[in-house]
Amino acid sequence: MTQIAIVPGSFDPVTNGHLDIIGRAAKTFQEVHVAVMNNSSKKPLFTVEERVALIHEATSKYDNVKIDTSSGLLIDYAQEINASVIVRGLRAISDFEYEMQITSMNRVLDESIETFFVMTKSQYSFLSSSIVKEVARYGGDVSTLVPPHVNVALKRKFE
Amino acid sequence: MTQIAIVPGSFDPVTNGHLDIIGRAAKTFQEVHVAVMNNSSKKPLFTVEERVALIHEATSKYDNVKIDTSSGLLIDYAQEINASVIVRGLRAISDFEYEMQITSMNRVLDESIETFFVMTKSQYSFLSSSIVKEVARYGGDVSTLVPPHVNVALKRKFE
Amino acid sequence: MTQIAIVPGSFDPVTNGHLDIIGRAAKTFQEVHVAVMNNSSKKPLFTVEERVALIHEATSKYDNVKIDTSSGLLIDYAQEINASVIVRGLRAISDFEYEMQITSMNRVLDESIETFFVMTKSQYSFLSSSIVKEVARYGGDVSTLVPPHVNVALKRKFE
Amino acid sequence: MTQIAIVPGSFDPVTNGHLDIIGRAAKTFQEVHVAVMNNSSKKPLFTVEERVALIHEATSKYDNVKIDTSSGLLIDYAQEINASVIVRGLRAISDFEYEMQITSMNRVLDESIETFFVMTKSQYSFLSSSIVKEVARYGGDVSTLVPPHVNVALKRKFE
Amino acid sequence: MTQIAIVPGSFDPVTNGHLDIIGRAAKTFQEVHVAVMNNSSKKPLFTVEERVALIHEATSKYDNVKIDTSSGLLIDYAQEINASVIVRGLRAISDFEYEMQITSMNRVLDESIETFFVMTKSQYSFLSSSIVKEVARYGGDVSTLVPPHVNVALKRKFE
Amino acid sequence: MTQIAIVPGSFDPVTNGHLDIIGRAAKTFQEVHVAVMNNSSKKPLFTVEERVALIHEATSKYDNVKIDTSSGLLIDYAQEINASVIVRGLRAISDFEYEMQITSMNRVLDESIETFFVMTKSQYSFLSSSIVKEVARYGGDVSTLVPPHVNVALKRKFE
Repeated sequence: MTQIAIVPGSFDPVTNGHLDIIGRAAKTFQEVHVAVMNNSSKKPLFTVEERVALIHEATSKYDNVKIDTSSGLLIDYAQEINASVIVRGLRAISDFEYEMQITSMNRVLDESIETFFVMTKSQYSFLSSSIVKEVARYGGDVSTLVPPHVNVALKRKFE
Repeated sequence: MTQIAIVPGSFDPVTNGHLDIIGRAAKTFQEVHVAVMNNSSKKPLFTVEERVALIHEATSKYDNVKIDTSSGLLIDYAQEINASVIVRGLRAISDFEYEMQITSMNRVLDESIETFFVMTKSQYSFLSSSIVKEVARYGGDVSTLVPPHVNVALKRKFE
Repeated sequence: MTQIAIVPGSFDPVTNGHLDIIGRAAKTFQEVHVAVMNNSSKKPLFTVEERVALIHEATSKYDNVKIDTSSGLLIDYAQEINASVIVRGLRAISDFEYEMQITSMNRVLDESIETFFVMTKSQYSFLSSSIVKEVARYGGDVSTLVPPHVNVALKRKFE
Repeated sequence: MTQIAIVPGSFDPVTNGHLDIIGRAAKTFQEVHVAVMNNSSKKPLFTVEERVALIHEATSKYDNVKIDTSSGLLIDYAQEINASVIVRGLRAISDFEYEMQITSMNRVLDESIETFFVMTKSQYSFLSSSIVKEVARYGGDVSTLVPPHVNVALKRKFE
Repeated sequence: MTQIAIVPGSFDPVTNGHLDIIGRAAKTFQEVHVAVMNNSSKKPLFTVEERVALIHEATSKYDNVKIDTSSGLLIDYAQEINASVIVRGLRAISDFEYEMQITSMNRVLDESIETFFVMTKSQYSFLSSSIVKEVARYGGDVSTLVPPHVNVALKRKFE
Repeated sequence: MTQIAIVPGSFDPVTNGHLDIIGRAAKTFQEVHVAVMNNSSKKPLFTVEERVALIHEATSKYDNVKIDTSSGLLIDYAQEINASVIVRGLRAISDFEYEMQITSMNRVLDESIETFFVMTKSQYSFLSSSIVKEVARYGGDVSTLVPPHVNVALKRKFE
C-alpha cells in the first residue's frame, strides 16, 4: 500500500523554509501532497492559483510531490485522498503550541491519521511568509529566503 | 462572610473546557459568578443573551453558580458584586503569559482581589471556542467537545 | 465545613516570594497548612526543623496558617489533614510546566483535591531559594529578598 | 566615532516600560534615537506627531536621546542615520520569539547592525501600550503605568 | 527498500506514554527499532536487560517492532542498522527545546537521517518515567500510567 | 571614559557559539572582558587554566578582548574591573528564563550595571558546551562547532 503524506499550509508565498519541510517529507514518505489551504480568514497576497503555480515550479525536482488545494477541513481532505500522515514544520514555541492544538483537534476528528512534525533547518527557523511579505513590501532583499521565481513574483506584487 | 469567585470569559460558545473550570470553581468557592464579558473587539458568533442561555443550561446542576454579563473592566464588576477571587483556566504557554499580563494589570487596579488559576482537564487542554467554531463551520463533529445543546446551537448557526 | 488549603514546598529557606504566596492563600482560604516537604533528593542547606522555625517566625501574623512537615506523597498528606485545595506559586514557564506535570499526577492520585495557582508579586518573579543561597554563599546582599531573620540564618550558615 | 543606537517601537502611547528601556539605552550608548515606526497595519490611537510629542516630553532629561519617525524598514532607517546598534526591550516569551524573528530578518538585511536586548524592570514586565489603552478606555486608573502627561492624553482621547 | 525508524529513550521504565509513541511509529513505518540508550549519566532504577524485557512484553502485539540497546551515539547506531528516521515523542516545551537541540546536533552528525516528532496522547502529556518512579517509591498508585507488568516490577523494586 | 563589557560563562570548552557572542560584544563595546567563572558546582572537563588558554587562542584577533577568571559573584567582579555592561548570549527559552532570573538578581545587587542580551547566529542556536562534550566523548565529529584547537583538546581529553 502506498503511504500518502500531506504537507498543508497557506504558502502565501512558499518560502525556503516550506521547501525544506517538503523536501524532508518527500525523502521519507512515498507520496507527498502539498495542500494549499484556502479557508484562512486573512486576505492572501497571492491567489490560490498563483500559490499553487509558485510551489509547482519550486518542487518540480521531486517525483513524488503533488500540489493540491483544499478549502474545507484538512481531515476531510486527508480522508478523501487516503492520506495516513500529516507533516508539519516546527520552528518555535508559538508554532509548537498552535500545532499541538490543531493536532489534538485532528485526532478528535480522525484518530487514524497521524501528524508528524519536522524541524526546519536552523537558518530558516525565523522565516515566515508574513515576514517575507512585510520586508518585500518595503523593498527589502529577500532573495536568500525564497526561490528566485518567488522573489520575482513578490517584486511584481509590490511594484 | 460569603466568598464570591468570578469565572470570566467570552464563552462564544461555552465548551467542555470552560465547564471543567466552572465545576472546579464551584467545588471550591461558596458562590461562583460566571461573567460573560461583552467588550471584546472581535465580533462574536453568539449574542450575549445566547451565550448566557447556553451556559445556564450547562450549569443548572450547580446551586452556587450564577451567570452575569459585564461590559466594562472586570475589576469594576468584581468590586460591584463584592467578589474577592477571580478564577481562570490555564491551558498552555500563550494562555499563561496572557493571563499573567491580565492578572498583573488587575493587581494594579485592585490589589485586594486575588486571581487563582486552575488547570483544565488534560483532554481539554487544546480546546478553545475559536477552534470549535472553525471545525463546526466546516461541518466537523465537535460533539465530544461541547455539551449537546451547544452542539445543536452551533449546527443552527452554520446551517 | 472548614476548607483547608496546603502550600507545599522545600522552603530551603523561605523567601519573600514564598511569603507572598502564603499571604495570598491565607487571605482566601480558611485554614492554610504550609507543608515543608522532606523527600527531595537534593541535600538541603537547612534541616527540616530549621526550615519550619524560619517559616514560623515569618508567618506569625497569620491566625489561620499552620506549619507541618511531610515526607511522603503530597496527596497522602492532603488526605490525612482533610485538605481540599493545594496552592502553588507560579513564576515562569519552567515553573508552569513542572507544576502542570505535578498537578496532572496529583489528579490521577486523587481527583477530589484541587490545585490552584497564584502569581507571585512581579518583583519576586525571579526569586528562588537556590539563587538566594548561591548569592548568600558568596557574600552578596539578599536582605531585600528574605525576611531579616532568614538573612541572619543564611549569614550564619555561610560563615 | 560616535556610536548610535536605535530604540524602535510604535509607542502608541509611550509607557513607563518603554521609558525604562530608553533610559537603559541612554546610559549605555552615546547617542540614542527613539524611532516611532509608522508602518504598522493596526490603526493607532495617537497620530505619529502626538506619539513623538509624548515621548519628547517624557525623555527631555536625557541629553543623548533624539526622537525620529520612520515609515519603512528599520534597517534602511538604521543605515541612513549610521546606527550600529538596535536596542529592544524583552518582557516575556512571546516578545522573545517575535524579537528573535525580527532580529534574524534584520541580520539577513544587514549583518553589521547588531541588536541588543534589555530586560524591562520587573514591575513593568506585563505592561504594553495595548493593555494600557484597553484599561484607559474603560476608565481604569493607569497613572502608575505611564507618565502624567500621557495619562492626561489618554483621558482626553477616551472622553 | 524497507524504511527503518528508531524510537530511542532510556525507558526506565517504559510508560503508557512511551507505548503510545511506539504504537504511532509502528503504524507509520515499516520497521521500528526501540533503542534503549545506555549512556545516561543518571543511575537507572532498572538494568538495561530489565528495561528491554519490560518493553518486549509491552510491545509483543506489534510485528514490526524490535528492541535493541545502544551505548554510544544514536547516529552511529542509526547508521549501523540503516535507519533513515528517528521518531521522538513531544510532550511539553522543555521537551521541545531539548529535542530541537538533539535534532540539530544529529543533523550536524548525519544530515541524511531525519527526525520526526509525534505528539503524545493528551492524557499522557504530563507523564515521565521520573514522575512514575517518584510516585511509586512512596507507594502511590501508578497502575493507569504503566502496563500491569511494569506496575508489578516497580512494586518489587520499591518493596 | 572607556566602557567595559563582560562576557561571562563557564566556557568548558569555548564553542563557536560563544565566539559568535564575544565577536558581537567586541564590535560594540570598547573593551570586552571574557570572564571564565569558576564557581560552578558541576565538575568541569577542562581546568580554568585550560579554558582560559583555549579562549585566548580563539580570540587573539580581537585587540579589545581580555580573558579573566572569577570565582565569586559576577557583580563583585564587574565592580572590581569597573565594567558597566554584561553581555549574554540568548539561544532558547530556557536560556531566556534563566538569564532573566540572573539579570534580576544582578540588578538587586547593583542597579548600575546593565545586562544586554544578544542572539546567537541561528546555526549555533542549539549549541552548548555540554552537547559538544557528550558528542565528543563518543567520538562524534564536532569540528564544525568548535575552533580547530578546541577540537584537538577535546580529542585529547577523551582519548
